Amino acid sequence: MENALHTLRERLADANALGSALAIMDWDQQTYMPKGGADARSEHMGILSRMHHETLVADETRAALDAAVAENEDDVALLRVVRRELDLKTKIPTALVEEKARLSASAHEAWVEARANNTFSSFAPLLERMFEIAREEAEHLGYEADIYDALLDQYEEGATAAEVRTMFDAVRGPQVELIRRIGEQPATDDSVLYGDWDIPSQKRFTESILKKMGYDFNRGRQDIAPHPFCTGWSIGDIRITTRYKDYLGSSIFGSLHEMGHAVYEQGQRPEWDLTPLAGGVSLGLHESQSRLWENIVGRSLPFWKWAFPELSAEFPAISHLGPEGFYKAINRVQPSFIRVEADELTYNLHVMVRFEIESSILKGTLAVADMPEAWNALYESYLGVHPPTDSLGCLQDVHWSMGSIGYFPTYSMGNLLSYQIWRKLQSEIGDTDALIEAGEFAPILGWLQENIYQAGCKYPPKELVQRVTGKPMDPTDYIDGLNAKYSDIYGL
Amino acid sequence: MENALHTLRERLADANALGSALAIMDWDQQTYMPKGGADARSEHMGILSRMHHETLVADETRAALDAAVAENEDDVALLRVVRRELDLKTKIPTALVEEKARLSASAHEAWVEARANNTFSSFAPLLERMFEIAREEAEHLGYEADIYDALLDQYEEGATAAEVRTMFDAVRGPQVELIRRIGEQPATDDSVLYGDWDIPSQKRFTESILKKMGYDFNRGRQDIAPHPFCTGWSIGDIRITTRYKDYLGSSIFGSLHEMGHAVYEQGQRPEWDLTPLAGGVSLGLHESQSRLWENIVGRSLPFWKWAFPELSAEFPAISHLGPEGFYKAINRVQPSFIRVEADELTYNLHVMVRFEIESSILKGTLAVADMPEAWNALYESYLGVHPPTDSLGCLQDVHWSMGSIGYFPTYSMGNLLSYQIWRKLQSEIGDTDALIEAGEFAPILGWLQENIYQAGCKYPPKELVQRVTGKPMDPTDYIDGLNAKYSDIYGL
Repeated sequence: MENALHTLRERLADANALGSALAIMDWDQQTYMPKGGADARSEHMGILSRMHHETLVADETRAALDAAVAENEDDVALLRVVRRELDLKTKIPTALVEEKARLSASAHEAWVEARANNTFSSFAPLLERMFEIAREEAEHLGYEADIYDALLDQYEEGATAAEVRTMFDAVRGPQVELIRRIGEQPATDDSVLYGDWDIPSQKRFTESILKKMGYDFNRGRQDIAPHPFCTGWSIGDIRITTRYKDYLGSSIFGSLHEMGHAVYEQGQRPEWDLTPLAGGVSLGLHESQSRLWENIVGRSLPFWKWAFPELSAEFPAISHLGPEGFYKAINRVQPSFIRVEADELTYNLHVMVRFEIESSILKGTLAVADMPEAWNALYESYLGVHPPTDSLGCLQDVHWSMGSIGYFPTYSMGNLLSYQIWRKLQSEIGDTDALIEAGEFAPILGWLQENIYQAGCKYPPKELVQRVTGKPMDPTDYIDGLNAKYSDIYGL
Repeated sequence: MENALHTLRERLADANALGSALAIMDWDQQTYMPKGGADARSEHMGILSRMHHETLVADETRAALDAAVAENEDDVALLRVVRRELDLKTKIPTALVEEKARLSASAHEAWVEARANNTFSSFAPLLERMFEIAREEAEHLGYEADIYDALLDQYEEGATAAEVRTMFDAVRGPQVELIRRIGEQPATDDSVLYGDWDIPSQKRFTESILKKMGYDFNRGRQDIAPHPFCTGWSIGDIRITTRYKDYLGSSIFGSLHEMGHAVYEQGQRPEWDLTPLAGGVSLGLHESQSRLWENIVGRSLPFWKWAFPELSAEFPAISHLGPEGFYKAINRVQPSFIRVEADELTYNLHVMVRFEIESSILKGTLAVADMPEAWNALYESYLGVHPPTDSLGCLQDVHWSMGSIGYFPTYSMGNLLSYQIWRKLQSEIGDTDALIEAGEFAPILGWLQENIYQAGCKYPPKELVQRVTGKPMDPTDYIDGLNAKYSDIYGL
């Protein structure tokens, strides 16, 4: 019996090594790989993905899982997590997995080109095949109410499209109302934040504050990529990327966002490293941490009372704003085209667009070729803006090119959970404003590590939320938090 | 029968994907990986190395090889190359391969530390185990005359320690005599080449000339690493690294050297990409190309008549030298401690030291713990210098930390072959000095591509040398070339 658990662990270690190789190859592709390397990278990642899949779904892995006997509660959790992963993977044929991996690599290149040249049509055939693959995956995985459920469950165990609709219905009204009231106020002028900002200064500033906040650069690094992301392959090597644009906030909040993902991963238990118990438990929980550090901490007034002197030393052109002026400028509410640069308040509306588009394509009521039109119509309807180009419209996100379909709602879940977790944290550690203003992040990071990060994947996400906050995911804290924050900023 | 060849190609593609993942992980480790990533990298590379090995030595790979029927001469070559590789690999137990891969990763970290802190003793235990592994490998591989033959043959098919001794015996006399005569001349003053050189300027200059010489940056890139190297995983992604030091020549000749390796790989036949027929055929041939571009082209007067204006625009502090003065300064002959920065003339003496050390340890007449003493004694005897620290002595090279034992003599073979090939190239394309001075590298690169690079691994190295130059490896052209060059520079 002990042998079966040992055999299982060996198989999992092999899968972990292949998965890590794939993650490194993907990181390299998005950061440093020369253009000419794309074809071979596709080929290699396709083969390694197949091997990764085969290692997990092999009869001997399943036999070891079935024969393994847990000796303690960690083993119980391990077996549960592995059983779920194997069940998911076993249902999807190896050939489909390999095709998806190959397509992802070439579709990523095509997406980069299409976005750069505003040519949706050059990307559309690959995207169409990607949605077909998603549909095939969903059929293999099986679902009851909605084809979307099968895809969403892969990213957020137990979540359903119906829950997503309920969530959006709960927050849409209050958010739209708040946006409407803000629209009646004088517009915030944040034009001073746009310019030709020195890149080494931005790099120096973001890396300095990230370090002080607790992101360990001995176990991580920050590079440049077209779309910011966080990746890693051990507790000792969790990397982030950012990008430098004319809006000064792009690099700052991109870095803070990815740092939130990264400290979640860096904060894992060392003894679970390289096993399926390590790492963030779901995308929603992961996003709750990126949004917590980006928005609740990083877009707060106490934070800029602490960080503004360092920022204005790098960029004297904004020093006249002071912390309060900067705080107001970065929290300007303005419906816009780009999700990753959206203010906190309009962000969920961007997600709703994507959810609608995905749902419609999966159900066959929208053709990929008609996506730009549908996208623009939804932006008009939800945000009152009309994207001038597809590059600023339906080509803006990397996700679909990588086959991540059914993924976007987890961003909104993350938004809700970030406030729900923060409220609980405040009730236990006290005056967070004072801590942040003093640059004392250790108590905050420590509480999150103890309560969330170190739990790894031991509990399913819904159970973890209940354990940590004492209730299921709930929009109350989120809506209250936004109302309080924006009423203050806009004097409502 | 066709099926067997097809099956074999699939197995080889799997091995190629695993080998490429390993190469990417190694590149990352030497360039960007944070310190904390070392343990997991060791673990992952150990597992992937085992999988790579197992894929090749699997019964079904061997069965496919045995049953495969060649349909054309490329197939014949493929089967020959694969048979040799499988024979080599089958002899070495998988456990030993995995241990070596794991040890390499941790020994590399230990070497970086030991070199930085001048603590040979912290590296010695790992190095000792590495030499034990080499001995075990050699015993598994088998040999007739000399344990060294088994290791050398892995890097240079068919080469023997006896041939290496014959080569060194042939060149030692003339080289030492030339160095002695130069020593009687007034010393060249190259102190102007030492300073705090701007790194972006060095990067800009080296990348500019490499591009003009034919290294394709759409299919490659240059990064920084402690030890310059070239690596790649497809014809479309061949990368080099360099380093920036106080000697201006370090980055320039490091880059030119690695570019020589890189154009060999970039010049392969596309139809063989990702198969065992692609890539340089042996280390000696590979080194012949790095040395040809670094020394014969890059340290020539015509080259600096072409490149000096661009260099002095970046570094006005040396503009007074002019091409001739710079040419003399970079060809200063001066016995020194560091192989990779040695002048062309003393270089082989550095290799001889390593060959003697390796031979003695493998034969058991020298203990690893006594290496520093033996190393320093040989430097005293061959070069008349005494390394002041182990960091400048036996800790200077990366090779042994990676388990590359029996590798160094291929550097000297490369030196000889570079002149032998160049002489043949000159006899066919005419006035190379005029081409180089005009910055017209295409005819030179074209001839090398057609005659050497595009041959890939189709012919064994000795056969390729015979085909290209009409004779076996021979020291004549090398000795003649050095005599002519240095007699001119030093007015002998």
